[in-house]
Amino acid sequence: MKRSNWLGAMALSLGVSALAMTFTDHSQAQGLPEFTLQDVSSDVQMPWGMAWLPDGDMLVTDRNGELYRLSDGQAGSPIAGLPEIHVNGQGGLLDIVLHPEYETNGWLYISYSDPEGDGEGSNTSIMRAKLDGNRLSNQEVIYRAEINSTRGQHYGGRMIFNDGYLFFTIGDRGDHFTNVQDLSRDGGKTYRINDDGSIPQDNPFINVPNAKPAIWSYGHRNQQGIAINPLTGQIWTSEHGPRGGDEINIPEAGKNYGWPYVGYGINYNGEVLAEATHGAGMEQPIWYWDPSIATAGIEFVSSDRYPELKNHLLVGGLRGSKLELLEISDDRVIRSTDLITDSGRIRAIRQGPDGYIYLGIEGEGIKRLIPAN
Amino acid sequence: MKRSNWLGAMALSLGVSALAMTFTDHSQAQGLPEFTLQDVSSDVQMPWGMAWLPDGDMLVTDRNGELYRLSDGQAGSPIAGLPEIHVNGQGGLLDIVLHPEYETNGWLYISYSDPEGDGEGSNTSIMRAKLDGNRLSNQEVIYRAEINSTRGQHYGGRMIFNDGYLFFTIGDRGDHFTNVQDLSRDGGKTYRINDDGSIPQDNPFINVPNAKPAIWSYGHRNQQGIAINPLTGQIWTSEHGPRGGDEINIPEAGKNYGWPYVGYGINYNGEVLAEATHGAGMEQPIWYWDPSIATAGIEFVSSDRYPELKNHLLVGGLRGSKLELLEISDDRVIRSTDLITDSGRIRAIRQGPDGYIYLGIEGEGIKRLIPAN
Ligand SMILES: [Ca+2]
Ligand SMILES: [Ca+2]
Repeated sequence: MKRSNWLGAMALSLGVSALAMTFTDHSQAQGLPEFTLQDVSSDVQMPWGMAWLPDGDMLVTDRNGELYRLSDGQAGSPIAGLPEIHVNGQGGLLDIVLHPEYETNGWLYISYSDPEGDGEGSNTSIMRAKLDGNRLSNQEVIYRAEINSTRGQHYGGRMIFNDGYLFFTIGDRGDHFTNVQDLSRDGGKTYRINDDGSIPQDNPFINVPNAKPAIWSYGHRNQQGIAINPLTGQIWTSEHGPRGGDEINIPEAGKNYGWPYVGYGINYNGEVLAEATHGAGMEQPIWYWDPSIATAGIEFVSSDRYPELKNHLLVGGLRGSKLELLEISDDRVIRSTDLITDSGRIRAIRQGPDGYIYLGIEGEGIKRLIPAN
Repeated sequence: MKRSNWLGAMALSLGVSALAMTFTDHSQAQGLPEFTLQDVSSDVQMPWGMAWLPDGDMLVTDRNGELYRLSDGQAGSPIAGLPEIHVNGQGGLLDIVLHPEYETNGWLYISYSDPEGDGEGSNTSIMRAKLDGNRLSNQEVIYRAEINSTRGQHYGGRMIFNDGYLFFTIGDRGDHFTNVQDLSRDGGKTYRINDDGSIPQDNPFINVPNAKPAIWSYGHRNQQGIAINPLTGQIWTSEHGPRGGDEINIPEAGKNYGWPYVGYGINYNGEVLAEATHGAGMEQPIWYWDPSIATAGIEFVSSDRYPELKNHLLVGGLRGSKLELLEISDDRVIRSTDLITDSGRIRAIRQGPDGYIYLGIEGEGIKRLIPAN
């Protein structure tokens, strides 16, 4: 039987869908091209978060407590009107995102370590505000984690809008046994709120007595990367784990991701924390690193600038000093590759409105990922 | 609220299952131990398949066309009564498995390149037989692939019993465009038959006109490893792909795994074959390698000899000359590690009845995986 006839017969027998041979993504058959990093700006030394204004200017947070607007890579004077920020260990001014309808409503959102509220030290807060010239106005704290701690660890602070909701992360604040598995306490969680800080009525714990109603998922150590899978619309996070236990997770409503009871790796002081890798009712990660690379920012590539990377996940390593590519298919990692090594400590990764991938690197500034030639 | 009270309140609110904190697998928190290879036998130089008799003796196929019984690592004279075998390129005597009820029925199964049948050259056949002293008896060919080819490539030939059925693989025989997507032809497929060669009535293509009824899945290049996931009972295979395109798949009934239209990598002569990585109605691999390691044997560890490896997948590389560990969770690879490097060309991997993992290494013989102290 000739091939075309056979295909026709099969289509009749099996139904058309199994044989509709439409193909996409021709690029990978030839392997990955080389990539390099191109300098964009060295004006912000501790970049933590990046967002783009409609005119193409970039807003960049410096963890040391300043917010800058970069025009063509040049920072002007810091933007005024920030709240009081407790620059403490891993705390400081953290992430920045714009409202999806920024052009009409002007809201931007920052996360930071906030000394207000109960107790010594600080905890993570989310503020929304508008940009009025070179200063913030209309400031409103729309989430304030309780209670404060003098510890410098694990503020979390990554934010992203998805489906009209603001998702953000708060780490365990160095007190994993107290905070993380207790839904009545902040810390070690992913959160979902409306753009004004009110609580979506379908949040998973809204009817659980004493639970914080903004909680979306729990059992996390310190999620410092968040991104949206363009094929599924789900949020993915990186979790800076213990030594030998960095993770990628897909935080789903109401689920428990195990920390500090279930996980990979040991504490940095050698203490064994998560003694098991599996536990009933606790989710397994999508991927984990041992040894740890100290994951921070992550981003899915959705632009057409990098056909080989499209719909795959970029992960930055702080200690690993590299940019790693996780190729994703059906929510699985099907290959892992070092895309850039000796990159410096990659803290933030975001795809800009021009389709390029921008990296915020500690002590170096902002760079852009470029296919070599 | 005290922790114990809070847990109680949560258990009432959420149901007990989410909070049943039972833990397993404590080992990985401390990282992987080192492993070494221990010599078992150097009497079989091209080991391809391994199986164990009830008395602990090992039956080992040599691709050069001999079958040996190893007692304490010593091979006696070759077992007589083999069929005529066309030792040709990658062909020869391939795999061997015992019937799950071998102790009562005495059936063993071999796969080999068989010069019988239509056409010049050979194709893959499956024979069952009994062991009568040092010779085979009751030989029956229960599957004979058509038609023969003089090409030396891609006989497949891996076999495994699962759920009472015999699964086996046949590669594309070097003629991918003719054989692989055509269900009326052998080659580039996974097969499922009953222990006597008859066809299970629920095979996926049994009612498709002209389709070979033994076919289980198609669109494969050359599957040279097969194993059963002990947690799910599903078969997993390794597929020796083109350059940059080795794969792990979970062949499911009736599904198309894409070759030669969809895949990763390029042909060894530089020709681009699978031009796309994705196609409608075609399955994505669980994992892929670029550069290729030239996958062959695979095995899931189910014994308690290696707590850190339990329920995870071992993959041997021929060109890669290594034993790779893929840690599996929920049908995803969550980490990949080189367990042994410079191992030589690992062709076969099987867990023995003593719980140890045995490796068949080309030019070296049989070795055993041992945790270093
Ligand atoms: Ca976890
Ligand atoms: Ca495939």
